[in-house]
Order: sequence, then C-alpha cells, then structure tokens
Amino acid sequence: MTANPAYRRLTDRFARIATIGECASMLSWDAAAMMPTGGGAARGDQLAVLAGLSHAHLTAPEVGDDLAEAEAGEPLPNPWDAANLRLMRHAYTRATALPSDLVEAQARAASACEKVWREARRTADFARVRPHLTEVVRLTREAAGALGAVLELSPYDALMDGFQQGIGAADVAPIFADYEAFLRRALPEAEERQARAPAVVRPTGPFPIDTQETLCRTLSQRLGLDFDHARLDRSEHPFSGGTRTDVRITTRYAEADFAQAVLAVIHETGHALYERGLPDTHARQPVGEAAGMAAHESQSLIVEMQAARSDAFLSWLGPQLYARFGGDAAPYAPENLARMWRRVKRGFIRVDADEMTYPAHVILRFRLEQALIAGDLPVADLPGAWNDGLQELLGLTPPDDAQGCLQDIHWYDGAFGYFPSYTLGAMAAAQLMAAAREAVPTIDAALAQGDLSPLLDWLRRNVHSKGSLLGFNDLLRKATGRPLDPACFERHLTDRYLR
Amino acid sequence: MTANPAYRRLTDRFARIATIGECASMLSWDAAAMMPTGGGAARGDQLAVLAGLSHAHLTAPEVGDDLAEAEAGEPLPNPWDAANLRLMRHAYTRATALPSDLVEAQARAASACEKVWREARRTADFARVRPHLTEVVRLTREAAGALGAVLELSPYDALMDGFQQGIGAADVAPIFADYEAFLRRALPEAEERQARAPAVVRPTGPFPIDTQETLCRTLSQRLGLDFDHARLDRSEHPFSGGTRTDVRITTRYAEADFAQAVLAVIHETGHALYERGLPDTHARQPVGEAAGMAAHESQSLIVEMQAARSDAFLSWLGPQLYARFGGDAAPYAPENLARMWRRVKRGFIRVDADEMTYPAHVILRFRLEQALIAGDLPVADLPGAWNDGLQELLGLTPPDDAQGCLQDIHWYDGAFGYFPSYTLGAMAAAQLMAAAREAVPTIDAALAQGDLSPLLDWLRRNVHSKGSLLGFNDLLRKATGRPLDPACFERHLTDRYLR
Repeated sequence: MTANPAYRRLTDRFARIATIGECASMLSWDAAAMMPTGGGAARGDQLAVLAGLSHAHLTAPEVGDDLAEAEAGEPLPNPWDAANLRLMRHAYTRATALPSDLVEAQARAASACEKVWREARRTADFARVRPHLTEVVRLTREAAGALGAVLELSPYDALMDGFQQGIGAADVAPIFADYEAFLRRALPEAEERQARAPAVVRPTGPFPIDTQETLCRTLSQRLGLDFDHARLDRSEHPFSGGTRTDVRITTRYAEADFAQAVLAVIHETGHALYERGLPDTHARQPVGEAAGMAAHESQSLIVEMQAARSDAFLSWLGPQLYARFGGDAAPYAPENLARMWRRVKRGFIRVDADEMTYPAHVILRFRLEQALIAGDLPVADLPGAWNDGLQELLGLTPPDDAQGCLQDIHWYDGAFGYFPSYTLGAMAAAQLMAAAREAVPTIDAALAQGDLSPLLDWLRRNVHSKGSLLGFNDLLRKATGRPLDPACFERHLTDRYLR
Repeated sequence: MTANPAYRRLTDRFARIATIGECASMLSWDAAAMMPTGGGAARGDQLAVLAGLSHAHLTAPEVGDDLAEAEAGEPLPNPWDAANLRLMRHAYTRATALPSDLVEAQARAASACEKVWREARRTADFARVRPHLTEVVRLTREAAGALGAVLELSPYDALMDGFQQGIGAADVAPIFADYEAFLRRALPEAEERQARAPAVVRPTGPFPIDTQETLCRTLSQRLGLDFDHARLDRSEHPFSGGTRTDVRITTRYAEADFAQAVLAVIHETGHALYERGLPDTHARQPVGEAAGMAAHESQSLIVEMQAARSDAFLSWLGPQLYARFGGDAAPYAPENLARMWRRVKRGFIRVDADEMTYPAHVILRFRLEQALIAGDLPVADLPGAWNDGLQELLGLTPPDDAQGCLQDIHWYDGAFGYFPSYTLGAMAAAQLMAAAREAVPTIDAALAQGDLSPLLDWLRRNVHSKGSLLGFNDLLRKATGRPLDPACFERHLTDRYLR
C-alpha cells in the first residue's frame, strides 16, 4: 500500500461506492429474475435511493479535495494505484460534470419514453413515441455537450466514453467503413456457398424445459463457471448480473427450441467468467473492474462465437445434446450444428443477426446516433433514415418501424454511444482468439473434449486479471501485439463462411 | 398533510431510511434463499454498508434539530402524524443512546460468538462458547444500561422495548406466573386424555417435494396471500421477509413429512398477510410498520394455530391433502389430523414444542435472560440453571446442553428480550380469535370451506390497518375490548385439549 493518505481515503470511499453498486446490481437481478410484479414500484424507489447515495458519495466535496491532494503528492509507485487514481478522477469528472437537475430530467424523460416505446413498438407506431424521443435526444445532447466540455471530447465521444473509455468515433468510423466494404464482397459469396451446402436438419422438439435447464447449468460449469459463486435463473431477456463473487446469469427457455437457451447461456457464461477472473487484489476499486463494455462483449463472444461454435467444440457438443434430447440423430451431427449455428441471413432485427451481418446493424445505429447527437438528423426523420440505411447496408427495407427504428430499447431509454461496443467486442474476440491459438496450441484439441480451460487460462492471464489497468487498445496490444485490428475478424469470417 | 416543515423533512428522511431497510431486507432474503455460498463475504459487507448508511441517516444532527422543532411546533392534528412523530423520537433516542464503539463491539462479539456457538451446539460443548457468551452478555448489559438510562427503563425492559415497545418485565411476569400455574394443572390432564384417545395414524410418504411445494403455494394463496406481491421459496429455516409490497416467505421440505412444510408455510403466510395489510397511507413511516414482534407473532399464530388447526379448517384441509398425496385415506381424516397436529408432548426443544408447552420454554428463557442481564446469573452457571428450570417447568432434564441452553441462536447472536414475544403473540392470537368469532359469526363456516376471508377481513380492519398507531395493549383493547388477557389463551387450550 501507499503512504499517500488522501489516496487511502479515496480507496475506502470507492470501496463503499462499489459495495452500494453491488446492492443495486443484486436488486436489479432480482427485479428481472425473481420479483413479483407488485414489487416493481418499491424496487424503483430502492434503486433510486441507492443511485442517489452512490452519486452523493462520489460527488462529495471531500472527493475533489482528496483527488487534488493525492495527485499533488508523491507519484504512486504501483502502476495499479496510479491507474486507479486516474480512473477515480475520471469517474469524479463525469459525475460532477452535469447539474443534478439535468440528470434528474434525463432520468424522468428516459423513464417516460421507455414506457411509451413499449407500446409504440407493439403497435409499430413511431409517431406515438416521437415527442418523447425528441425530448430524450434534446437532453442527451445537452448532457453530451457538458460532458464533452470537461472531458475535452466531442459530445458523441463523451457518450461513447461512458461505455468504453478511450475509444471515440474517429477510432471506430474507419474500422466500420472497412467492414462495410468487406461485407459487400463477403456476404453475397457466403450466401452463395450456403445455398450450395446441404440443407440444415432442424431438431424437432419438444425439448423439456427442465432438461434444457440442467443441460445449460452443466454446460456453464463445464466451461469453467463455479456455481459456488454463480447462479443460473430465468428472465425475459438473458443477461449476466450480480457481482464478481456472486455472478447471476439468466436465460429464457422455449420448449420448441433449445438452441436459444443454450447459446445464450454460453454467451452469458463468457461475461460471467470475465467477472470471476477480475483481480481480487483490486476488488471494489475502479482499476479492478472490467475494462469497459467492448472488452466485456469480447469475453462473451470469444466463448460463444469463437470457442463454442468452433468445429472442435461442436464435435463434442453434438453428442452431448443428442444424449440429452434423443430422437433423430441427424440434427445433432456436428456438421449439421455448424450449418445451423453458423449461417448468414440478412434480417431486420439486430438481436437475431448472425455474426457477419450483425456489424451492419451496429454501423447503421452508430451513424444515426452520431447524426442525432450532432443535431444533423431530426428525430422526425429517423424512420426514413433508418430504412434508407438498412437498404444501403443489407439491401432490405423493414416492413414497419417495429422491425426498424423501434426495435431496440437503447435510445428510448437514453443510451447513446453504446452500440459500437458490440462490434468492437466481436472484433476483439476474433483477435484475442487468434493470439490465444498461436500462444497455446492445445486450445482446439481441448475444445474437442468440451474443455475450455486452456483458452480460459490464457484469457485469465491476458485479459481478466488486468481489470482496468489498461485501456481497450493497450489491453489488446499487450495480449496480441497490436491494437484493435479488424482484419482478424474478417479473417475469422472468411475462414468460417468462405472456405 | 401538515404545515409543520420540520415534520415534513422527517417523513422524507424516514422514508429514505425505510427504503434502505427494504434493500437490506431483500438482500437478507437472497442470502438465505438464493445466494451461492461464495457470495457470503461480499453480502456481509453489503449489509454492513447499508446498516451504516441507515444508522448515519437516523443519527444525523439534523434529525435531533428537526425533532425538537417538530415537537415544539403546533401539535400535529392527525393522530397518525402525532404517533409517527413519537415513534421517530423513540427510534432516534434508541439509535443515539449507544456510543458507536459499543455498537461495533457488540456486532463483532455477536458475530464471533454465533460462529463458535454453531460448533459448540454440534458438539454439545457449552464450555467452548462460554467465554464468547460471557463477552456478549457483558456488552449487552452495558448497552442495556445505557439504553435504559435514556428510555427511563430498567436495563432488561430497555432490551424488551427493542422488540415490543411498551411491554416490560412487570407486564409479563404475572402473566407467565399465571400460565405456569395453569400448565401445572392442564398439562397432566391433557396428557391423560390424549392417552385415552385413538392412536394417531401417520401418513406414509414419500411426499414428492414438487407436490408439496405446489400445495404450499396453493394453500398460501387460498389463505389470501396475493402472489403478485409475494414469493414462496426454500431456505434452511422458514421465515417471512422482503417488504410490504413484495413479501418473501420460505420453508423447507422433507420427502418423508409434508406437515413441516405445510404448517410452516401457513405460519409464514400469517406474517405475510400482516405485512400486506399494513396501511398504504403510511408506507415507509414508523407508524405504518407492524406494531412489534409480539403483534407480528400474533398474526402468524392466529392463522396457523387458531384458524388452520381448527376443526373447521381441518375438515376442509384433510380431503385436499388426500387428493394431493393419495395412498391410505385414514391419515387424512380431519379427526386424525387434529390428533396429530394438536398433541401435547413435553420436550427439550422449543421450536418443536406444541402450543401448550411452548410457553414453558419461553418462561424459562425469560427468567434466565432477566437474571443474566441483572448480573444475578453468571454465564458459567447457565447450563445448570437451565436444566433446573426445565425440570421445574416440565419435569424434564436435557441429556446434554445441545438440547438445553445451546439450542437457540438468540443469546449467542446478542438478542436478549425477544423470547417473551412468542408467548405474548400466542396469547394475543387467542384473544383476537375469540373477539373475531364473536364479531363475525361466519368465520368457522368459512374456514370449513378453506376460506380465511371473514377472519382476514376482521384482522385487516382491527389489526393490520392500524400499523403502529397503537401500542400492543391499546391495539388489543381497541380490537377486543381489553388489554392482553391470558385467560383467552387458557380458555382456547382448555377447549382444544381438555374437552
């Protein structure tokens, strides 16, 4: 530890803030996975009180004083402490940048908008939610401007910074432009090859939910999740929540289709393994947290897309599934699973997209949200711009706005600047997988035994245990020898879909 | 609402404190019902942080100022507000009575003692935990003295006040002495009558856990618990937790015996119905809370002991159980259920005791804990005093301390003054039931249809909706025409066991 007493006070304070955050995280999980509907109103109050307490702790005047004192003192000798102090300053700067009436107005507007959005999506009626979204965008622009001013970033970059620190539009735009060009060549070719391949044999259910749930838990354990520190439950949308010593993952089950639950649990297990691998030595400190949303997505996708959908893993998984579900063996043949789960298909809906077309959905949103925040795109023009953009990227026009600009909750809930993280994560996953395979030649042989551990060990050493010590690009540079390189992802897609 | 601005500020503050308490309550439920073992350490920290935040809110200097200002202002015209202000003052007085180093020393000592107690109980080795209990008693005496000084109560009464405000040893001692005399006559007679009755036919299992769980949920719903505002889960010990709009009850299941789970769920449903019936108009205010632990126990026991074990209800329940479990019909005959579930039996263990001998266990503990707090009984003499006392009350001597003074967690965890609540609750339940039956003649006819609602409506009007507006005895006086009257309980036992 350090002799810097102001830094010591700050670590105590941030540990308390993190602990309050753990309470909120658990209660959010409960709200999605356990809570009866009648608990909703009180839960909202509970989470608001915790958020207020956390904000008050972070923005107290002593924090500014302690930060100034800690920064003015002798430099912290340990690089973890030095990084931690920088991250504390960053958190404080973000938290104090906005007047509290603006933060409250944003929370109220987002809450109202999100409610109307549910109805608007159900009825495919954008006009209904338009005034609400207009207000959300107006307030977000105001906040982004204020944040950008103190962070010395453009308004949109200030929003992106809230999800993946240190990555801005100028980093992402050329990567996305490059991917768009790749997609224009690769997608038709992949579709053509696919058309020539044998037809997919669909497994026929019903697949009893209990059997699916046991299978999912077993799979998650097999992938390395320790259920002394985790739970698997059900919720409307799969997610990974809880805390680093008590991770709560969820999925949903459908009797007619086991793939949805199995693949979601594998994905969430990737997130959970990242949380479990964060450094104990810096628990509850900013530097001990995951390195951002793109980094987090890279860890779910490396497990789901890179490892679990590999030929090696499918050769192990197929017989496992057949042993559970029985019936006709043909659908469970590894080559059939590969054809079924590695299939490109242009579609309207982001969350249903395959890994090749998914970035197109992200690119569309990235461009539109930049324009919304810049003030170049009036909210009234959003549906048209959406449809034009999707036509341009995937050659499709949504039949209605429910399958267009109303499909995602993010903007209606006030989240702008998040979407790029999905694709940055997918690209980072491909890059990390390539580096891991090079460093550890046994990865695929182990996957063919259903064993993730050689890959997981490498990820723990090179990603999980680093917490937030390094920024996204530095993390990749240290682990793979270079910053984010979209060529790895294109190579992965080429290998998988064009060979 | 009132024009008293200091009171208005206090209601805001107490609502925040209550909301923090709701978070803690949910996380405690989770710890018992959901949490994987690995989450335990972090959960302890989370609950400690919430307790610290709550305490800091309650003891902030502004609270004392606002209380003084509110009390000095115009009297609050609404009796609910007047009672609320008194309860706020009481909570503040209790919270500020103890120096924080004493509170921390108590928490540490109790936590250490409770851990050693688990081992001591397992090995029936009182000597092992004796030094820890000695320290807990020493600190409790110190705290009780300080609390008593500000509350103008004896040390032991100051402890009792923490569980059931306004009831002290001088209220309880004559009631318990009277009951002891009753028991001396009634118990041998009940045993003799029981010996002459037909033998109990035990239902033979196994009783599948899933069937039991579905039955328990259905029963709890049937009794009036709305599962839009409640859950039923499993934990090592049954309890009722959560919040008033989101009650979480738990039980445990054994394949060999359904009665344990069914009766526990009925009991916890009684607690839950009380929480659900508290006045919405004063939610999150002291006056809107349950009227104390004895009052709470009266509501679980009126449902479990008075209603559900009545002839009327058993005549409905028997066929329900038979329909679920099948097999031989004889055990499910209402008269057999009555013989099985209304059976006196002297024993060593409080939690296994029948309703007639249960108070003897409480009386023993009441007398011993008074002596411990008064300093009249050294901890080293506790096992001997326990065994003498049980011999005196029930004519039994425990074979070892595990079945004697080590059986309950309460003292080892620092809880003194709680035990009387159990028996005060049982007595109040009998008194309330008698008054309800008099006021609502349809209660038993409805119970014979498995319908609690006439009784529940009466309880909602006369108990639940009163919150903490009235003290324990005033609540009873208003509902039944007189303060706690142990004769009602003796009459109930006489009717049930001696007729």
